[in-house]
Amino acid sequence: MKKRGLLIVISGPSGAGKGTICKALLQKNKDLKLSVSCTTRAPREGEKEGVNYYFVSKEKFEDMIRKNEFLEYATVYGNYYGTPKSYVEEELNKGNDVILEIDIQGALMVKEKYPDGVFIFILPPSMEELKNRIIKRGSETEDSLKTRFNSAFEEIKYMSNYDYAVVNDYVEEAVKKIECIIIAEKCRCSRVMDTVCFNQEG
Amino acid sequence: MKKRGLLIVISGPSGAGKGTICKALLQKNKDLKLSVSCTTRAPREGEKEGVNYYFVSKEKFEDMIRKNEFLEYATVYGNYYGTPKSYVEEELNKGNDVILEIDIQGALMVKEKYPDGVFIFILPPSMEELKNRIIKRGSETEDSLKTRFNSAFEEIKYMSNYDYAVVNDYVEEAVKKIECIIIAEKCRCSRVMDTVCFNQEG
Repeated sequence: MKKRGLLIVISGPSGAGKGTICKALLQKNKDLKLSVSCTTRAPREGEKEGVNYYFVSKEKFEDMIRKNEFLEYATVYGNYYGTPKSYVEEELNKGNDVILEIDIQGALMVKEKYPDGVFIFILPPSMEELKNRIIKRGSETEDSLKTRFNSAFEEIKYMSNYDYAVVNDYVEEAVKKIECIIIAEKCRCSRVMDTVCFNQEG
Repeated sequence: MKKRGLLIVISGPSGAGKGTICKALLQKNKDLKLSVSCTTRAPREGEKEGVNYYFVSKEKFEDMIRKNEFLEYATVYGNYYGTPKSYVEEELNKGNDVILEIDIQGALMVKEKYPDGVFIFILPPSMEELKNRIIKRGSETEDSLKTRFNSAFEEIKYMSNYDYAVVNDYVEEAVKKIECIIIAEKCRCSRVMDTVCFNQEG
């Protein structure tokens, strides 16, 4: 039996740096598979179809909902975001580890379906820094900035639903920690027991 | 409040290579503290007082038992082995991580007192290899070899009581995995939550 891969969920408040961390993590670890989400929001500058997101219309998204094609989906600031089920399942069954970069609302839904997943919460170094990052992103109006910041603060309270928390003060350090978490999770007794076979004859 | 250190219990069947792994782990990580056990067995060649064990008389050991000075103690092949409580507690309270290299019987006792400890089971690559290692050690008679081997086989069944299992096929690899387990455990939400403080003012 082929050993199933790990589902690694990278999540946390808006502005914590999930995206930067995932990008660096994937660049260093070519065998990790990134699950690309669907969204109905407009692409930000530099975002590419099929790399950052699949950008789809509201009609298409709602059709996919009806066909039960999402692992999870949610509405955030009036836009749909969702994780297509098929890709994740295929890669896990092939034995590949899959990275899900996802907001907290979505992560909690995934956790219900994949309690065996590894849930990592990315923390900004401080709330001050979080504010700066949201401002720097520059795509926000004064009002949406306030909404995002308050929401990020509320979201940090969900940390206790996760397995791990990684503070994103230095991206490289954060990535190293996530790599260690993946290696450690593969050493969990429950996982190792499926792969070792000992008999008294040696 | 100073953050308490991690108690890292390295355990597993006789001949799995716990000692070799701990030695290499400690050489690479100078801030890890090794808890040195007391034993009434005779020193093996090369073993040093206060480094490998504190070699004490049966009378002294039983006196320490009466004074409740052990975290755990056990009789293995007719000899006492025990972990003095004071050193472990002092170092953990200073915020230092403490390594306990200990047999399975002892590890299970420690787990009752320190459920927060990180329990790592060292596995030999195979039972064949385990037999070779016990023979190579050369300090065993035919009978004690058989006893040790059968006991090692029985002991592997206790793996499920541990958090992690690390196969000792290459010492360097095994050490790297343990280093990752330590880093990952420090990222556990329950531990991070004690150290981060966020307020809405930033």
